[in-house]
Amino acid sequence: MDVRPYLNTHFDRFTDELKELLRLPSVSADPAYADAVRQTAQVVADHLEKIGLAGVEVCPTPGYPVVYAEYLAGEGLPTVLVYGHYDVQPADPLELWETPPFEPTVRTTPIHPEGALFARGACDDKGQFFMHVKAIEAMLAQGPLPCNVKFMIEGEEEVGSANLAWFVERNRAKLACDVILISDTGMLAPGVPSITTGLRGLAYMEVELTGPNRDLHSGLYGGAVANPLNALAQLIASLHDENGKVALPGFYDAVEDLDPATRADLGRAPFDLNVYKAALDLTDVVGETGYTTLERAGIRPTLDVNGLWGGYTGEGAKTVIPSKAFAKISMRLVPNQDPEHIANLFQSHLEKNAPKGTRVRVTPHHGGWAYVCPPNHPGYLAAHRAVAQTFGKEPVPVRSGGSIPIVALFEKELNAKSILMGFGYDSDAIHSPNEHYGLANYRKGIETIPWFYTFLTRVG
Amino acid sequence: MDVRPYLNTHFDRFTDELKELLRLPSVSADPAYADAVRQTAQVVADHLEKIGLAGVEVCPTPGYPVVYAEYLAGEGLPTVLVYGHYDVQPADPLELWETPPFEPTVRTTPIHPEGALFARGACDDKGQFFMHVKAIEAMLAQGPLPCNVKFMIEGEEEVGSANLAWFVERNRAKLACDVILISDTGMLAPGVPSITTGLRGLAYMEVELTGPNRDLHSGLYGGAVANPLNALAQLIASLHDENGKVALPGFYDAVEDLDPATRADLGRAPFDLNVYKAALDLTDVVGETGYTTLERAGIRPTLDVNGLWGGYTGEGAKTVIPSKAFAKISMRLVPNQDPEHIANLFQSHLEKNAPKGTRVRVTPHHGGWAYVCPPNHPGYLAAHRAVAQTFGKEPVPVRSGGSIPIVALFEKELNAKSILMGFGYDSDAIHSPNEHYGLANYRKGIETIPWFYTFLTRVG
Repeated sequence: MDVRPYLNTHFDRFTDELKELLRLPSVSADPAYADAVRQTAQVVADHLEKIGLAGVEVCPTPGYPVVYAEYLAGEGLPTVLVYGHYDVQPADPLELWETPPFEPTVRTTPIHPEGALFARGACDDKGQFFMHVKAIEAMLAQGPLPCNVKFMIEGEEEVGSANLAWFVERNRAKLACDVILISDTGMLAPGVPSITTGLRGLAYMEVELTGPNRDLHSGLYGGAVANPLNALAQLIASLHDENGKVALPGFYDAVEDLDPATRADLGRAPFDLNVYKAALDLTDVVGETGYTTLERAGIRPTLDVNGLWGGYTGEGAKTVIPSKAFAKISMRLVPNQDPEHIANLFQSHLEKNAPKGTRVRVTPHHGGWAYVCPPNHPGYLAAHRAVAQTFGKEPVPVRSGGSIPIVALFEKELNAKSILMGFGYDSDAIHSPNEHYGLANYRKGIETIPWFYTFLTRVG
Repeated sequence: MDVRPYLNTHFDRFTDELKELLRLPSVSADPAYADAVRQTAQVVADHLEKIGLAGVEVCPTPGYPVVYAEYLAGEGLPTVLVYGHYDVQPADPLELWETPPFEPTVRTTPIHPEGALFARGACDDKGQFFMHVKAIEAMLAQGPLPCNVKFMIEGEEEVGSANLAWFVERNRAKLACDVILISDTGMLAPGVPSITTGLRGLAYMEVELTGPNRDLHSGLYGGAVANPLNALAQLIASLHDENGKVALPGFYDAVEDLDPATRADLGRAPFDLNVYKAALDLTDVVGETGYTTLERAGIRPTLDVNGLWGGYTGEGAKTVIPSKAFAKISMRLVPNQDPEHIANLFQSHLEKNAPKGTRVRVTPHHGGWAYVCPPNHPGYLAAHRAVAQTFGKEPVPVRSGGSIPIVALFEKELNAKSILMGFGYDSDAIHSPNEHYGLANYRKGIETIPWFYTFLTRVG
């Protein structure tokens, strides 16, 4: 369905509405923002109500609420469940933002000559799920929808969707659908449309290493007692071998080597290593021996420290041996790696291998399975044709390195595949300072989504 | 000289005056406390004036001022320069203090049954240098001093005495002396008096490791670019070999192996490994193969991480690969190790060995040479006899692992040895939360110092 006339007339308002949404600091990881997160849920519900959806509800969970709404076109018609999240990543380090994270500002960039909206959540995921709200508004302006649509917008995606399983298990009938549609991923590059057909899984862990029972003077004790900072560094260094492989015994047991055809397919995605290195100002890329950069970032499991701290970190010098050192460490998983098993394996390995004179305690944060969508799935075909229609080019199927653990949950609980049709770019700095989302991408997304429904009803 | 009658009458006031001094948060490392540091200098000067010293001066330097005062007994008499510092370590982590760091509170502990004063700086060094002020007050109450005394109390010891060399070079004549007397060290244990005859040197470095030019999403980039946190851990782990030796090429070049007699002497200091481990709740001690715990902490050079940070360190989980990771690393040095040479060696080694895909920048903070005082020095003999007089027991000479880089400076600029007659215990938690100083130690120090002058004039 072509919504361009409506879109052209209303695009400025659509942008203003998104800006309003971005002003709400809905940081789910930090309890200081709890009020803003709850307020955002209500604002999203109001939007769904206003465009004419039925059964709008801010559904309580043991954590932040899930916003639900639906449009029932008729029995026998295909049902699409739109999933998104209204919570955002923490904005720190604040000092690196050129404009404040919760004051949306439009600036042009080389990749976004028509302007991009800079704000935390602009791309991940407020800007992207809101395209669906506006697309449905535009479609409804032209008449009834060709299929049933349900919205489920949650508020805990950035903290591992802690209570979404709880919600889905209790609402299987309500959420019943043929396919789930999600815009929370990216496209390869301007002029290179793509659709994500795979995601990595995740196991996120917190490590606490204890040496002496109190902070010590490094002059009086240095050299004679285990320093938790040195010990934690040693422990972390031991988690990779010299070939860049994760050195946890059993980590690769369930990992399947991809067949040459799939690897060749993946290798066809346009990718320029020099451009990649220049964009990140990297002296070199690194990673697992025997795999390309795209493979390392997409189809291979990894282990990364996401946070590390201990001792004196202020200005100047303090000669202390701290009692404790801490790390946040996450592993990206590939199909067949059980996140719970990997978490146990990590925990017991680290606790058993605490450097001499120290104790290690590991706490799992959250995790999720990897996901793969087959290329002949009707939902994928509809998305593929929709993107081809509006971008004038066949999209490239891509295995992304990111994780949306809930797609595995949806498959298990709702018996439906998720279609990951996102419109951001890798350079949009999601999870980083100066996150942004191109206004052209926002517009193109709203233009593409209605075609998905058109082609889905034709395929289905 | 026996000052006990005066001390007994005035001890409560002496304690109250020290408490007043401890209420001033003179943290030299943190610019937020600049006013308090300068105010403390003035308060110290007022005390020196009040007890009757001449030439009291708050001497400006490019940093915090040095407080000077003198008592000139007569030409030909020995001259003692009393050194101390009125600045203190940062108090963080604040949440671990049982009472606020700048609200001095008296509590008893098993090792301090007569009570200890809990406050930042109680032992290091306000409580200890102030004993000298009160000892001189008590001596002057009985008549003229038997020798010349000069006070030099600085405000930058905890940040490496950044401007003390500047001050000493410009005031050689004013500071001319036969011996320097310092109470900024400890005694071995209750009932085991000791005098420090050696100190380790120091080289304190700051390391910044940069990977990508911005924070990245660990899902999209994990496994394909160097993670600065993993890379810094790897770099730090590479700084020790499997025998606990510092793995910087050239680090041990100037280190002399101590002769068996000196090692045997050191081994005579009372030390119980089980008590040591139990006090710190250690599962085990660690360190350089072939040396005892006392040797590792006293006569061998070391390398310790004092601070480590990067990435997301807040509550919850954030899947980020940060652009940068940081560490503060200090090395304790032994006689003949040139701190500047060691700093250069560290800097070039780390910058050359930056893990693939990263850049390392090293900034030296400050450093100082190690120090040894010969056991037949008149100042040492006077201190030895003074301690024996008031403790009723011969003190043990001890090589401490700590650093007071300025003693090497004094030796070079003033051509005088420093006598390190301290009265704290290792368990007084200097540089840690809940720093304290025993009231009995404070009293015993004030009682002992006058005897030093008595015996010095007899020896000299």
